[in-house]
Amino acid sequence: MEATLMDLAAMVGGNLNGDPEKLIFNTASFEMATEDDITYAAGASYLKKINECSAGAVIVPLGTVIDGVNTIDAASPEGAFAKVKMFFHKPESMAREINESAYIGLNLIFGSEVAIGPFAVIADNVTIGDRVSIFPGAYIGDNVVIGDDAVIYPNVTIGQNCIIGKRVSIHAGTVIGSDGFGYTQDEGKTIKIPHTGIVHIEDDVEIGALNTVDRAVHDKTLIKQGVKTDNMVHIAHNVIVGERTLIMAHAGISGSVEIGTDSIIGGQSGVVDHVKIGDMVYIAPRTAVVKSVETGESVGGTPALPYKLALKVIAAIPKLPGALKRLASLEKKVEAFINSQTQDKEK
Amino acid sequence: MEATLMDLAAMVGGNLNGDPEKLIFNTASFEMATEDDITYAAGASYLKKINECSAGAVIVPLGTVIDGVNTIDAASPEGAFAKVKMFFHKPESMAREINESAYIGLNLIFGSEVAIGPFAVIADNVTIGDRVSIFPGAYIGDNVVIGDDAVIYPNVTIGQNCIIGKRVSIHAGTVIGSDGFGYTQDEGKTIKIPHTGIVHIEDDVEIGALNTVDRAVHDKTLIKQGVKTDNMVHIAHNVIVGERTLIMAHAGISGSVEIGTDSIIGGQSGVVDHVKIGDMVYIAPRTAVVKSVETGESVGGTPALPYKLALKVIAAIPKLPGALKRLASLEKKVEAFINSQTQDKEK
Amino acid sequence: MEATLMDLAAMVGGNLNGDPEKLIFNTASFEMATEDDITYAAGASYLKKINECSAGAVIVPLGTVIDGVNTIDAASPEGAFAKVKMFFHKPESMAREINESAYIGLNLIFGSEVAIGPFAVIADNVTIGDRVSIFPGAYIGDNVVIGDDAVIYPNVTIGQNCIIGKRVSIHAGTVIGSDGFGYTQDEGKTIKIPHTGIVHIEDDVEIGALNTVDRAVHDKTLIKQGVKTDNMVHIAHNVIVGERTLIMAHAGISGSVEIGTDSIIGGQSGVVDHVKIGDMVYIAPRTAVVKSVETGESVGGTPALPYKLALKVIAAIPKLPGALKRLASLEKKVEAFINSQTQDKEK
Repeated sequence: MEATLMDLAAMVGGNLNGDPEKLIFNTASFEMATEDDITYAAGASYLKKINECSAGAVIVPLGTVIDGVNTIDAASPEGAFAKVKMFFHKPESMAREINESAYIGLNLIFGSEVAIGPFAVIADNVTIGDRVSIFPGAYIGDNVVIGDDAVIYPNVTIGQNCIIGKRVSIHAGTVIGSDGFGYTQDEGKTIKIPHTGIVHIEDDVEIGALNTVDRAVHDKTLIKQGVKTDNMVHIAHNVIVGERTLIMAHAGISGSVEIGTDSIIGGQSGVVDHVKIGDMVYIAPRTAVVKSVETGESVGGTPALPYKLALKVIAAIPKLPGALKRLASLEKKVEAFINSQTQDKEK
Repeated sequence: MEATLMDLAAMVGGNLNGDPEKLIFNTASFEMATEDDITYAAGASYLKKINECSAGAVIVPLGTVIDGVNTIDAASPEGAFAKVKMFFHKPESMAREINESAYIGLNLIFGSEVAIGPFAVIADNVTIGDRVSIFPGAYIGDNVVIGDDAVIYPNVTIGQNCIIGKRVSIHAGTVIGSDGFGYTQDEGKTIKIPHTGIVHIEDDVEIGALNTVDRAVHDKTLIKQGVKTDNMVHIAHNVIVGERTLIMAHAGISGSVEIGTDSIIGGQSGVVDHVKIGDMVYIAPRTAVVKSVETGESVGGTPALPYKLALKVIAAIPKLPGALKRLASLEKKVEAFINSQTQDKEK
Repeated sequence: MEATLMDLAAMVGGNLNGDPEKLIFNTASFEMATEDDITYAAGASYLKKINECSAGAVIVPLGTVIDGVNTIDAASPEGAFAKVKMFFHKPESMAREINESAYIGLNLIFGSEVAIGPFAVIADNVTIGDRVSIFPGAYIGDNVVIGDDAVIYPNVTIGQNCIIGKRVSIHAGTVIGSDGFGYTQDEGKTIKIPHTGIVHIEDDVEIGALNTVDRAVHDKTLIKQGVKTDNMVHIAHNVIVGERTLIMAHAGISGSVEIGTDSIIGGQSGVVDHVKIGDMVYIAPRTAVVKSVETGESVGGTPALPYKLALKVIAAIPKLPGALKRLASLEKKVEAFINSQTQDKEK
């Protein structure tokens, strides 16, 4: 694939400074780009070393002009570069058809330009919007609804009755709608609490690879519009995750937790059940959240402390062994001094 | 689906107080229930606010009678409600047949009313009991034995020779019988230790979604009767997990660990290899167990401490930065005082 | 299967002391072995209790001879035993053919003795070396290259363009080439950064079950020769893992981290993005690495401290609650003494 710089400038709506006819064949990182590639300068530090960059063209911040370098400017060079990448590279994709090796249950309702791969299983009474892609090996349970432009990657499992919004991506191996972990005692026996609720994933959500999102006991586990999760995130039954919240790898959210909008849950963090996390909360990586966190707060540590205090604790902890020695030594010193003074007096 | 309150009372063996002919169409949570739903009151706090509940009927503790509310009583309202839920909701299920799109290897022995879904793979010499369900995309290796009423959810992998008990559920994406992580040195090269043992899962075990249970080096990794694991639990080679023990999400159990009966391993906990954990042990979430834990003990922290001490440590840690300042200040104060006293004497 | 001790001695190149015609039918652990089994003595502690061992023969350290016990000696008894195990036990395997139930895309190039299982999906333009095994339910994306003797276990997903080396094993359910977690802002909207790089896994790598290795933003995420990962390891975009490094279960490596050769990353550890970890580094289990670690260093703790200091901190932490009490008491004592002295003087 190829494009002239003139075409690329038009594509991102930026000003071209350089040779409009120059052909570009690919995108590359600032460090690895060659004469055939376009790259971008993320900020001032990249502009300073732009003469070390061998790219055929560089996307730069708005208004930047550099002698002898082909540039296209953009308010967000990274955003503009993303558009250019999407031109040169096609994402994992399939033919827009229902592959004859897929299994299609009863009463499938589907939109236009749907792609269903080999060995995908669509159980009964499923509804699939326009341009949905369901990759090989994915399992879509009875009564599931999937919105327009959603992409379900290979070997994903979506349990019965779940609702998946528009433009949702669910990466490979993820399990949506597994039973929550819930048991009760009846007549001296452990019995499983039937999980009859669903998982509802709203529009524009991206769920990473190998996530688990458990269905609710009743009602629904709810992942709201614009949420993004990294890989190996576990979200338990009845959780609500607010709009645009980000959850990083290996984080675990226990049952019935409510998380607000625009929050960030760091990697390997854990949140105990039934707490509330407000909007715009920052939870540092490896934090153990054991009580509710108010809107706007930042927390860190095990268990979670206000972030500034957590940083102080982190700085203090290596000093603890020395401090214990100093404390013991001071105790002796004080004891000895008091004794000596007392003896002095007794003399 | 629908049932009269009379029928539902008979179903759970409870006393009905109210209209026996009233029709109920569904179950719901206490908060979300409507006139068509039945719900339950988990305890006294729910009974107090029962007039806020719009349910058509409420399952209540034994002997409870409330004016103007249709109630059914039960020793365990939650247990009775579970039964009612199982009447109204069918779990993820399949036609009781071997789907023609499944792959069936040589010498399959299978019981009655077996369900094997599309694109499930049954390798050679497999034995499957009565009423077993094997969902689409599951892989069952050579010589595997699966007991009556077991349910293997989509995209599960069970490696060769493993044994799965009766009434076992294995949730989607889980891997049973992966090789343990074991290497040795021979003639200066790293070589893999062949893992020739199996995983044996006894009756009534429920394994969550996206678990890994590694096969033993020799002999077997053993998950005993009634164990329940949450999602993303890792159980390494040669581990033994005792009867009815619960293991929460993201917990990792290292090689050759032995865990007793009726213990609870909290979420995101880790247990180092070769330690023993007794019966009725409680391991708090996010605990790092680095040595054996006796029967009946509770532990928490990294590394694990007796639980009460762990709570004290947790309460003490935020005070550490301040304590370091106080210590330094006290050191100066003592130093200054001793100096002043010594000078006094010298005068 | 069976073999004489003479044959087994020849197989491992060791000296037989005992009955050359004795038949052995299986391998077993030292504790569980019977007269029909061969086992090995891992070290001096096993040799001491060799009369408690019922094995038909024991592999022992070089030069060891024990009266009345059939022994074969070897420089590495464990290594020799591994060879014997590989004789008696066949690993999970398939017929050397492309199963007619597999889906094969356009332009597959493949070597000799390839095994592709039922319902495996090979997308377009894939290249597969000699003796490669691709188990049921695995998905191999467009343009993927897989080297000789690689084994791709059931339900693995390998995204487009990725490169897998020779003798690589990728265990069940693992996802190679998922998108990295990367978003940027453009015109006030969150947009996804297209991940157009690949994952390149070099020769002799073993990736455990349910791992995720994300593709690079550009260029590649690189897992070098001889790396071994345990289960549920997450490796983010643009990471480089050096030769022969081991990564234990539930560890998470954030974006653009570079790890050197022959290092060990303990279970449940986390490494923040963009740091460098040198060669022969030891990262203890449950460590949070927040800055670069030099070659040869050992670290532990949250956040990571030099290992010896981490051990001192671990020993000190339980003393913290008591130390706070001692500090308060010492403060009072000093205060009281100073006051008393001052009053004395005032008198």
